[in-house]
Amino acid sequence: MLYAVRMDVALPPGMDSDVRTDTLAREKAYSHDLQRAGEWVSIWRCVGQYSNLSIFDVADNERLHEILWNLPLFPYMTIDVTPLAQHPSDLAAG
Amino acid sequence: MLYAVRMDVALPPGMDSDVRTDTLAREKAYSHDLQRAGEWVSIWRCVGQYSNLSIFDVADNERLHEILWNLPLFPYMTIDVTPLAQHPSDLAAG
Amino acid sequence: MLYAVRMDVALPPGMDSDVRTDTLAREKAYSHDLQRAGEWVSIWRCVGQYSNLSIFDVADNERLHEILWNLPLFPYMTIDVTPLAQHPSDLAAG
Amino acid sequence: MLYAVRMDVALPPGMDSDVRTDTLAREKAYSHDLQRAGEWVSIWRCVGQYSNLSIFDVADNERLHEILWNLPLFPYMTIDVTPLAQHPSDLAAG
Amino acid sequence: MLYAVRMDVALPPGMDSDVRTDTLAREKAYSHDLQRAGEWVSIWRCVGQYSNLSIFDVADNERLHEILWNLPLFPYMTIDVTPLAQHPSDLAAG
Amino acid sequence: MLYAVRMDVALPPGMDSDVRTDTLAREKAYSHDLQRAGEWVSIWRCVGQYSNLSIFDVADNERLHEILWNLPLFPYMTIDVTPLAQHPSDLAAG
Amino acid sequence: MLYAVRMDVALPPGMDSDVRTDTLAREKAYSHDLQRAGEWVSIWRCVGQYSNLSIFDVADNERLHEILWNLPLFPYMTIDVTPLAQHPSDLAAG
Amino acid sequence: MLYAVRMDVALPPGMDSDVRTDTLAREKAYSHDLQRAGEWVSIWRCVGQYSNLSIFDVADNERLHEILWNLPLFPYMTIDVTPLAQHPSDLAAG
Amino acid sequence: MLYAVRMDVALPPGMDSDVRTDTLAREKAYSHDLQRAGEWVSIWRCVGQYSNLSIFDVADNERLHEILWNLPLFPYMTIDVTPLAQHPSDLAAG
Amino acid sequence: MLYAVRMDVALPPGMDSDVRTDTLAREKAYSHDLQRAGEWVSIWRCVGQYSNLSIFDVADNERLHEILWNLPLFPYMTIDVTPLAQHPSDLAAG
Repeated sequence: MLYAVRMDVALPPGMDSDVRTDTLAREKAYSHDLQRAGEWVSIWRCVGQYSNLSIFDVADNERLHEILWNLPLFPYMTIDVTPLAQHPSDLAAG
Repeated sequence: MLYAVRMDVALPPGMDSDVRTDTLAREKAYSHDLQRAGEWVSIWRCVGQYSNLSIFDVADNERLHEILWNLPLFPYMTIDVTPLAQHPSDLAAG
Repeated sequence: MLYAVRMDVALPPGMDSDVRTDTLAREKAYSHDLQRAGEWVSIWRCVGQYSNLSIFDVADNERLHEILWNLPLFPYMTIDVTPLAQHPSDLAAG
Repeated sequence: MLYAVRMDVALPPGMDSDVRTDTLAREKAYSHDLQRAGEWVSIWRCVGQYSNLSIFDVADNERLHEILWNLPLFPYMTIDVTPLAQHPSDLAAG
Repeated sequence: MLYAVRMDVALPPGMDSDVRTDTLAREKAYSHDLQRAGEWVSIWRCVGQYSNLSIFDVADNERLHEILWNLPLFPYMTIDVTPLAQHPSDLAAG
Repeated sequence: MLYAVRMDVALPPGMDSDVRTDTLAREKAYSHDLQRAGEWVSIWRCVGQYSNLSIFDVADNERLHEILWNLPLFPYMTIDVTPLAQHPSDLAAG
Repeated sequence: MLYAVRMDVALPPGMDSDVRTDTLAREKAYSHDLQRAGEWVSIWRCVGQYSNLSIFDVADNERLHEILWNLPLFPYMTIDVTPLAQHPSDLAAG
Repeated sequence: MLYAVRMDVALPPGMDSDVRTDTLAREKAYSHDLQRAGEWVSIWRCVGQYSNLSIFDVADNERLHEILWNLPLFPYMTIDVTPLAQHPSDLAAG
Repeated sequence: MLYAVRMDVALPPGMDSDVRTDTLAREKAYSHDLQRAGEWVSIWRCVGQYSNLSIFDVADNERLHEILWNLPLFPYMTIDVTPLAQHPSDLAAG
Repeated sequence: MLYAVRMDVALPPGMDSDVRTDTLAREKAYSHDLQRAGEWVSIWRCVGQYSNLSIFDVADNERLHEILWNLPLFPYMTIDVTPLAQHPSDLAAG
């Protein structure tokens, strides 16, 4: 099942530099793992924003929530979820 | 260059049935052509909405506008465009 | 899988009385069928609004979209979809 | 009487870890008590959000306010209340 | 039980003059009946708006919805409902 | 002259406990005085919110501002003011 | 008593030309009368908008509502009312 | 004096085809005249929108309003005006 | 040239008392100077708000920005600027 | 390729004075370099705002993001990006 997810990041002004570096490194590794597993299908930077637009392909709502809730940057994110379905104009729909 | 485009459709209440059928057929054919050409990369239905989320891969801003402006459903659409760039956490970014 | 769906209805001012009666009857029958099938779990009226809040329990995003898209009142509705997951404070979560 | 309540939680960035753990434990116990008493009918996690959607079945407005006001997380919540009534399409409405 | 209700009226541009006069007369009589019955406690005009702010004192959510749904102007109104409870600073609260 | 006033309170996270207790006590006494004087006609709690809806009956705009500006909680409030007039459907309007 | 009032005008697309001309003439005469009477103190055009910002000096809320309700363009206007008081930095405040 | 102006166009659904063609031709000629006169400095299409972003260099507020009010498409436009000043980081500011 | 300017003030919670007193005194003196010079034509308090609505009569956009940018309270303000022109219904317009 | 970019700056209340001075100096130098390179075509101050409206002419989305992401003030900015195309009424369009 597919979902579009927009994540906007807002790090707190006085965030400790080491904490920040570590959090970002863990976020990247976490994302890499899920991309390799085929659940985090796409991730794009929204131009001029500390934001990404991502496509997830997961088993169900529970799994999507588990993935997002455990993002290292989750406490600093505003997240918007759009469930997707096949579009009748998609070539793949025949 | 990549762009995410959200299109929300609102057909006028008293739209003539033949005009409607014809417009939707032309919209589908138009989308199919651009998908085959590799410019309209993805199209998904947003669940519960007369809307789609699409990814375009086009030469530049001019080309994206040309494509959207000529959508048979353009006069009935609200369109939101988000320019995209490569995300540093994308596996493809190395 | 569970989803909360809010539906706001706005019938066009000059809607034909017979069309209206027929559409509402079909909407009710359609909802009854899905309630009996266990997919439309709950439906409540939002006080003072021509709106309902509903809970759906369906196989996946595709099925939810199919149900909503085929609502007889779909062309007159604004729909908001919230995917749900189990809450850790739910007694059922142990 | 039924109400739908959406609660969005925003814990302050530098919240003390013990205070946080204690508050969350009390919140869970508080919710469990009300679920057992039949007043907090349903609680679902909104996917990708630090939020829940809940259904309450209480005697009146006063009782709902008393319950919400005394939530251990109340000072950190944004709360939206929708009073509900029976929907004419509800199978239970005959 | 008390509720604050804001009603904003928007009559359609080409509304038939007789229908309009009749609807407004029925709205007024309907409001008068409920004021005399003690359920529609207060009604004020919002300055410069085709709107009112009203206080209702009714048995429950069901009754409030019944009253609002049957307003002759209901099809032309946007309605906002705020459930009320006793305020601890109210002199009547002791 | 009547005004509806909605006050939403947001106390700062780390507010000193004594300052808080004292401010709330002064707010309550201040409100009581104005209720006894007949200027603060009604005050209701909005269910589930740290908010009240109040009706004021004061001499003019200047007096309403003086009252609101001197609320002990004023620095922590978002305030919305709606000037009211007699509604033609009010029984008292004849 | 002073009020700032913003009026945004939206004439219906197919408005009869004579009705339009007559309504605008009556609006202008109505405004002139109130300006001469000293109640409509100022009226400015908001640049690029079919809108005005006006200052009224009237006896009370009732009178302001009476004036606005009887504007020939009232049915086509969105109106926003801001009650004003003397500012402590106003030279006239001493 | 410089202003940024965003214009969003919404032609009415059933607009007569000749009226439309004529209005668009007059709009284009009107814009050309002002561009040649140096008052309409820049005009860009916003990608995917029936909208433009323009820069005007005019004598004062009165002149800008005169220009916008007389746009052939003015009755079909939503217009947003931002007055501009020299930016201290502009190379031209020295 | 005339502009309407709305200024909403939000002083930071823990602002030093002396800094606050000094800033407010400088703000008042600054406003008095510009009122005497005829550039700050009117200033009104918005009832129930830490806000003012002001009318400025200045040479051009540059001068208005210079005035607003140098307000002692500028760092704590949200400012909304509306350029004004003569209204055709203004008595002064003949 | 052209883009309109609006940048709103909000420096944190307690920002160190030296850090602030240094950041603003680097921001100015950064902007000057890009103006000289022809990529940052225009920059205007929005009157009464700590904001600018800018026009960029860059190779593609990637380059625009690189420029914006590296703005010394980026962590303190809210940025809005509008991709632009040639307007058919632009004199340069023939």
